[in-house]
Amino acid sequence: MNQQLSQLLQECLEKGSKEDLETLTYAIEGIHQKVIGKKRTYLEGLAHMERKLDQKSCEISIPLHSLFENSLGILHGGITATILDTAMGVLANYLLPNGFSSVTNQLNIHYIAPGVGDFLRCRAELIHQGKNTLIISGEAYRSDGKRIAHATGTLFIIKNKESGGK
Amino acid sequence: MNQQLSQLLQECLEKGSKEDLETLTYAIEGIHQKVIGKKRTYLEGLAHMERKLDQKSCEISIPLHSLFENSLGILHGGITATILDTAMGVLANYLLPNGFSSVTNQLNIHYIAPGVGDFLRCRAELIHQGKNTLIISGEAYRSDGKRIAHATGTLFIIKNKESGGK
Amino acid sequence: MNQQLSQLLQECLEKGSKEDLETLTYAIEGIHQKVIGKKRTYLEGLAHMERKLDQKSCEISIPLHSLFENSLGILHGGITATILDTAMGVLANYLLPNGFSSVTNQLNIHYIAPGVGDFLRCRAELIHQGKNTLIISGEAYRSDGKRIAHATGTLFIIKNKESGGK
Amino acid sequence: MNQQLSQLLQECLEKGSKEDLETLTYAIEGIHQKVIGKKRTYLEGLAHMERKLDQKSCEISIPLHSLFENSLGILHGGITATILDTAMGVLANYLLPNGFSSVTNQLNIHYIAPGVGDFLRCRAELIHQGKNTLIISGEAYRSDGKRIAHATGTLFIIKNKESGGK
Repeated sequence: MNQQLSQLLQECLEKGSKEDLETLTYAIEGIHQKVIGKKRTYLEGLAHMERKLDQKSCEISIPLHSLFENSLGILHGGITATILDTAMGVLANYLLPNGFSSVTNQLNIHYIAPGVGDFLRCRAELIHQGKNTLIISGEAYRSDGKRIAHATGTLFIIKNKESGGK
Repeated sequence: MNQQLSQLLQECLEKGSKEDLETLTYAIEGIHQKVIGKKRTYLEGLAHMERKLDQKSCEISIPLHSLFENSLGILHGGITATILDTAMGVLANYLLPNGFSSVTNQLNIHYIAPGVGDFLRCRAELIHQGKNTLIISGEAYRSDGKRIAHATGTLFIIKNKESGGK
Repeated sequence: MNQQLSQLLQECLEKGSKEDLETLTYAIEGIHQKVIGKKRTYLEGLAHMERKLDQKSCEISIPLHSLFENSLGILHGGITATILDTAMGVLANYLLPNGFSSVTNQLNIHYIAPGVGDFLRCRAELIHQGKNTLIISGEAYRSDGKRIAHATGTLFIIKNKESGGK
Repeated sequence: MNQQLSQLLQECLEKGSKEDLETLTYAIEGIHQKVIGKKRTYLEGLAHMERKLDQKSCEISIPLHSLFENSLGILHGGITATILDTAMGVLANYLLPNGFSSVTNQLNIHYIAPGVGDFLRCRAELIHQGKNTLIISGEAYRSDGKRIAHATGTLFIIKNKESGGK
C-alpha cells in the first residue's frame, strides 16, 4: 500500500464514526467488485447495482446506503437519475442490433416520494423504437413498493465505430 | 482496521491495475473529506465537489474521473444530473427564507455533448421564484468550455419541521 | 349580420378555394356548438372535441382537419399538446374532491410520429396523486392506431375560490 | 353561400351573445387572412400570429382572445405550447441550410403564471445546434411583461424530400 493511501485510511480509522467506517467499507467493497471483474464500471460497483434484463424490460436495483444520501439524509435524486438512466441505456443497447448503441439525448424525471428504505429498484420499458431514437420510460420504486420517480427519456441510436484490426 | 476491510484492500492491492488503485485512492480521499468535516455528505466528498455561490447563481465543479465513467468511458449522464441537481438545490435553499427548504419535483435534462476532459462545471440560475415552487435552469460545461447539458427543474418549497424545544 | 362579418364572408366565398370554404364551415360549426351550449369553450367547439371519462382515464378525440395543420400539412404539434393537456386536466378535475381544481405546472411531450389520418385520440391516465400535485400521463394515437406522442405532466392542486353568498 | 353555412350563421346570429358574435367574427377574420394569402396556415390566421425573426431569435405574438380560453377563462396552456412550438420551429428552419427542415422531437414546458391580459409574446432562442438536432428555448410573456412559461425543445433536423421535376 502506498503511503498516501495508507495515511488516508489511518486517519479515517482514527477519526471516523461507526457510520464513516461502514460507509468506507461499502465503497471499497464496490470498487473491489470492479477490480475482480464482477462489475463493468467503478460506478456500477460503487452503487452495488444488480441488473435483470428480459426482452421487454431492464431492472436495476441498488441497496440504499448513506454513501448516496443528500444533505437531508435521503437518497440523492441524482442517484435515482443515474440508476434510471443506466436501466434505460442497458435496455436500449439490448434492443438494438449488433453494431449499434445508444446515448441519452434527453431525460425527464418526475420525483414523487422520498427515497428511503432498504433498496431502490428501477425498471425501464420501451415506449417507442424508431429509426433514429428510442423513447423509454423508467419507474423507480423503493423497498416498501412505493413508486418514487417516473421518467421518460429519448435515446439516440449511434453506429458503433469499427473496432477494426482483430 | 477490521478484518473485512483489511482483506478487501489486500485483494485490491494485489489484483488491481494502476488505474484501479488510483481510483480506489480517489474514492477514499473523497470519503476522508467527509470524515474530517470538509464535506457535508459522503457523495459530496466522493465526487470532490467544489461550490461557488452568489446571490444569482450556484456553481459546482468536479474533476472528471474514471470513478464516474459509464461503460463507454465517458462521464455517466446520471452524474451530470447529480451535479446539476445539487447546484439547483443549493441555489434554491440559498434563495429561500429561513425555515424553508426545497425538494426537486421535476428535472428535465438535454444532453448535448460527451462529458470528457478535466472537469465538469455546473451552473444553476433562477428562472422563477413563486409561492410554492422555484424554476431553476442548470448548465453543464466541460473543461474546454463546451456546454454538455442544459437542464430545467421545478423545485417545491417546503416548510422545515420545527427543530423544537432547544 | 353586421357589415364587417358580412364583408369578410363575402370575400371568403368569392376568393376562397374549395378547401378554404370547407375549413371556414368547419370552424363556424365548431363555434356554433359553443353558441348552442353543446361545448363548454370555443376551443372545445373549434376542435370538435369529444370526451370519454371513466374513473381511471379520460379520452378526448378530435377529427384531423386542415384547420389545425402546420406548414408541412400535418397536425400541428401544439394542437396535440392542447388535446393532451385538456384530457389531463379533465381527468385531474374529475379525480379531485369538490372545491378543488388543477392547473398544469409542467408538461413534457415526446413526439413519435406525424399526425395524419382521420382523427387524433388522446388518453390521460393517473400516475400519482399527491397532496399538492398530480402526475398524469397522456398518450396520443392516430386513426390507424399508431401512437404519435407520449406525454407526462405535473398538475398543481388548487383550492377553488369560494363562489360565495348566492 | 351554401345552405349549411348559411344556416349555421343564421343560428349563431340569432342565439349568440355579443361575445359569441365577436368571437365568430374573430375566427372568420383569421381564416380570411389565409384565404387572401396573408398567412401561411389556417391556424396562423385563426390565432392572428405576427412573427419577427432575426438571426438569433424568433418572436411570435398573438392577441389574447376568448376563442383560445380554457374553462377557467384564461389562455389554454396548449395554445401557449402551440405558439412556443411555432416560434421554435420557425427559428430552426431559419437557421438550417437550404434543403433541410426540422420537426419537434420533444418539448418541455414549465407554466409559471396565468395567461391573461392583451397579448402573448413567445420568443425562441437557440441553445445548441448539432449535427442531428437543435435545442431551442422558448419564453412566453404576457402584455404586462410577466413571463408565463419557459420551454425547451429538441428539434430533429430532416433532409427535405427532393421537390423533383426541375
